[in-house]
Amino acid sequence: MTDDGYQLRPIGWVRSPIVDLADAPRQGDEGGPPADLVFASEFVEGLRDLHVGDAMLLLTWLDRAARDVLVVHPRDELTRPQRGVFSTRSADRPNPVGLHHIVITAIDGPTVTVGNLEAIDGTPIIDLKPLLAPTGER
Amino acid sequence: MTDDGYQLRPIGWVRSPIVDLADAPRQGDEGGPPADLVFASEFVEGLRDLHVGDAMLLLTWLDRAARDVLVVHPRDELTRPQRGVFSTRSADRPNPVGLHHIVITAIDGPTVTVGNLEAIDGTPIIDLKPLLAPTGER
Repeated sequence: MTDDGYQLRPIGWVRSPIVDLADAPRQGDEGGPPADLVFASEFVEGLRDLHVGDAMLLLTWLDRAARDVLVVHPRDELTRPQRGVFSTRSADRPNPVGLHHIVITAIDGPTVTVGNLEAIDGTPIIDLKPLLAPTGER
Repeated sequence: MTDDGYQLRPIGWVRSPIVDLADAPRQGDEGGPPADLVFASEFVEGLRDLHVGDAMLLLTWLDRAARDVLVVHPRDELTRPQRGVFSTRSADRPNPVGLHHIVITAIDGPTVTVGNLEAIDGTPIIDLKPLLAPTGER
């Protein structure tokens, strides 16, 4: 383990027209708007080799989530029976890591623009990874 | 933000025959062995509604990773040119979250057995999520 232990470091923040949780779609493919990923200057070197059109996985930290939750009503519909949180994609869970499929539409220095992101304005970014390519292309 | 800020809480640990990083395949589909996910007792209620055969995403914290790395040689092959870390799946990165596609093969109380996991013995587990179903099934 490093000296940092289990402490996440935000590497950037989402800049989005969605400012209210109530306006956020539950998953990006249900229709999120374009958004900017604004990286902190000390992490910009890690953005080398990203390209417009790349399909990526964005990891965020859903910092408004409730972390003491182990059972939820799916999609917050109270008429649906409660489920164990690990069988759902609820944001409320012990470690609220958000996973988002994104496609890069522009890159300008520390700012990576993506289409169709459901995360709200100000959401901390913790990682960005390529989708796995077929084995031969890795 | 909650009082916990950016602090991850391990919800369990991987129990695997792989005890040495050098023996770990780089991705699960390159041939990891079966492994157990052993959850801490206080999180077991969240495992309700998991079933044998479920395809899930496992999130781990790769606690042996170097976190001060922004460029890497892909797959540690020194003959390949360095790349920005966010265009790679390197474990060495500012927030070393591991993502693993797993399928549940057995459930026994706090222990969920999965096939084909490349994480090494003792790796902390931070989350378990279902793969997204088609929209109508959510």
